[in-house]
Amino acid sequence: MDILISEVGPRDGLQSIKNIMPLAAKKAWIDAEAAAGVTEIEVGSFVPAKLLPQLADTAEVVRHARSIPGLTVAVLVPNLKGAQAAVEAGAHKITIPLSASETHSLKNVRRTHAQMLEETRGIVALLRGLPKEQRPKFEGGLSTAFGCTLEGDVPADRIVQLAEQLMEAGCDEVGLSDTTGYANPLQVKMLVKRVRAAVGEHALTGLHLHNTRGLGLANVLAGLEVGITTFDASLGGLGGCPFAPGASGNIVTEDLVFMLEAMGLRTGIDIGKLLKVRDILRAALPDDELYGFTPDAGLPLGFKPATLAAPRTQVA
Amino acid sequence: MDILISEVGPRDGLQSIKNIMPLAAKKAWIDAEAAAGVTEIEVGSFVPAKLLPQLADTAEVVRHARSIPGLTVAVLVPNLKGAQAAVEAGAHKITIPLSASETHSLKNVRRTHAQMLEETRGIVALLRGLPKEQRPKFEGGLSTAFGCTLEGDVPADRIVQLAEQLMEAGCDEVGLSDTTGYANPLQVKMLVKRVRAAVGEHALTGLHLHNTRGLGLANVLAGLEVGITTFDASLGGLGGCPFAPGASGNIVTEDLVFMLEAMGLRTGIDIGKLLKVRDILRAALPDDELYGFTPDAGLPLGFKPATLAAPRTQVA
Repeated sequence: MDILISEVGPRDGLQSIKNIMPLAAKKAWIDAEAAAGVTEIEVGSFVPAKLLPQLADTAEVVRHARSIPGLTVAVLVPNLKGAQAAVEAGAHKITIPLSASETHSLKNVRRTHAQMLEETRGIVALLRGLPKEQRPKFEGGLSTAFGCTLEGDVPADRIVQLAEQLMEAGCDEVGLSDTTGYANPLQVKMLVKRVRAAVGEHALTGLHLHNTRGLGLANVLAGLEVGITTFDASLGGLGGCPFAPGASGNIVTEDLVFMLEAMGLRTGIDIGKLLKVRDILRAALPDDELYGFTPDAGLPLGFKPATLAAPRTQVA
Repeated sequence: MDILISEVGPRDGLQSIKNIMPLAAKKAWIDAEAAAGVTEIEVGSFVPAKLLPQLADTAEVVRHARSIPGLTVAVLVPNLKGAQAAVEAGAHKITIPLSASETHSLKNVRRTHAQMLEETRGIVALLRGLPKEQRPKFEGGLSTAFGCTLEGDVPADRIVQLAEQLMEAGCDEVGLSDTTGYANPLQVKMLVKRVRAAVGEHALTGLHLHNTRGLGLANVLAGLEVGITTFDASLGGLGGCPFAPGASGNIVTEDLVFMLEAMGLRTGIDIGKLLKVRDILRAALPDDELYGFTPDAGLPLGFKPATLAAPRTQVA
């Protein structure tokens, strides 16, 4: 596999729509994506059910997803309590979001940067107390890294500093999120280079990009060109960030996989099977709009995806 | 100006919808785009009115557009007769489409490659007979250059050969068109490099890309990275190619301008004014869908477009 697609629909997609997807449909969705070759799925978020009733069953979803061989089960946690629940359920990967815009952080999780870094250190202490084989990977996800709907421009210096602080706090890696869909390709390259220069290239391998202004895949291309190997995406483009007004639209997994496979990059995903997974979403969420260009247009005549031309080798 | 945006909506957009835009609305559209800073517009096509009644008033549109100072008025012509009409109306730039897929060529204009090259030579003879100051620029536009819905893969060798033949026939330059929306960024770079190696870099400066599978702006980025400086786009994403089934969707001018300006590239276009031009389309074509992400999401808070930061210098 050349590029890792991390499916975030069951978390980022579902949290931003009003309808609640039944547990059985979530399981069927995750099963079908894994069967199509997706190897990492962010299946939910450990937040109070009254805040996000859509994700109230995350513990059960994690336990189910863990039963799928070869699947990395990721979750989002806003604090130590969420991390404890994630560990208990058996998540393989935990991400704590830290909004580079402090205004957005206060609005989103009601915490300052200092408070979030303190929470991060608490989670690290929890994880380091676990036997190594039970310890989930821990990522600090820098949201609003490319600009904020409340603060506007977010200085690159601040992103670099926060990335360093997250690594100092004990995160295994950091990620950059374009929560608001403000990123452009030049900025993606610049910021990835700057953060990697500060924390090391192995500490930044992933980007979470949105397609709010149609630049999602162009930003992916920019990321590829500076060595990024993991991209988040949401099947059917479901979701966005409900706390950043006017910002919505994850990259569509189907379009992303099409682009990468057309470029000869193996995602390990069978795009034909992936396109059929939309049926599960459509049936479970009949009132929610699905996005994506490739699903409407179909694959090009005679299309040869890289993954099927040269099947992925087993990743250690 | 760093990048030239060639607005093709009045031709490529209008030819692929059923409704006919009244002449007055076409004029208002062109006037408003020019006032927003667009310096090249493909305003129509000289084809028989019974084939494309939407463009039957092209001669009048050309005459009107010519009255706008600084605007390059471009048209498409399928043959010598069309070129004569274009010259008579006073077009500044003429493009003849040559489909790299001969199957598509036969279906689109009922002519083989040999016949189209013969037609091209006839047009060159016509243009060379004109006084130099009245001679329009003449481009050979290679359509289905990135693949065909009827033939599938189109070999790069064939594109290179046809580009050479168009230049030998006397075209001033060639362009590459992703008529079917099959292109991917790797292919864009490869094909641009190969064609430029064959005909010289000044003979290939422009790309006509579609967003059929969502890769339009990623393909623009790829083009930028190999030195392309002119991109076609359609306001509101109007249009596509009615003769390539399943293929639709020009790049949205608004999203393209946003991406370039955000990257610090001057288009000479005031994006705020450009976004307002949509109102003219919406009023004139109430039943046709307009596309674009930036118009829905709005500009980022505190957005500083490159053109307004450093206004364009007068282009000779």
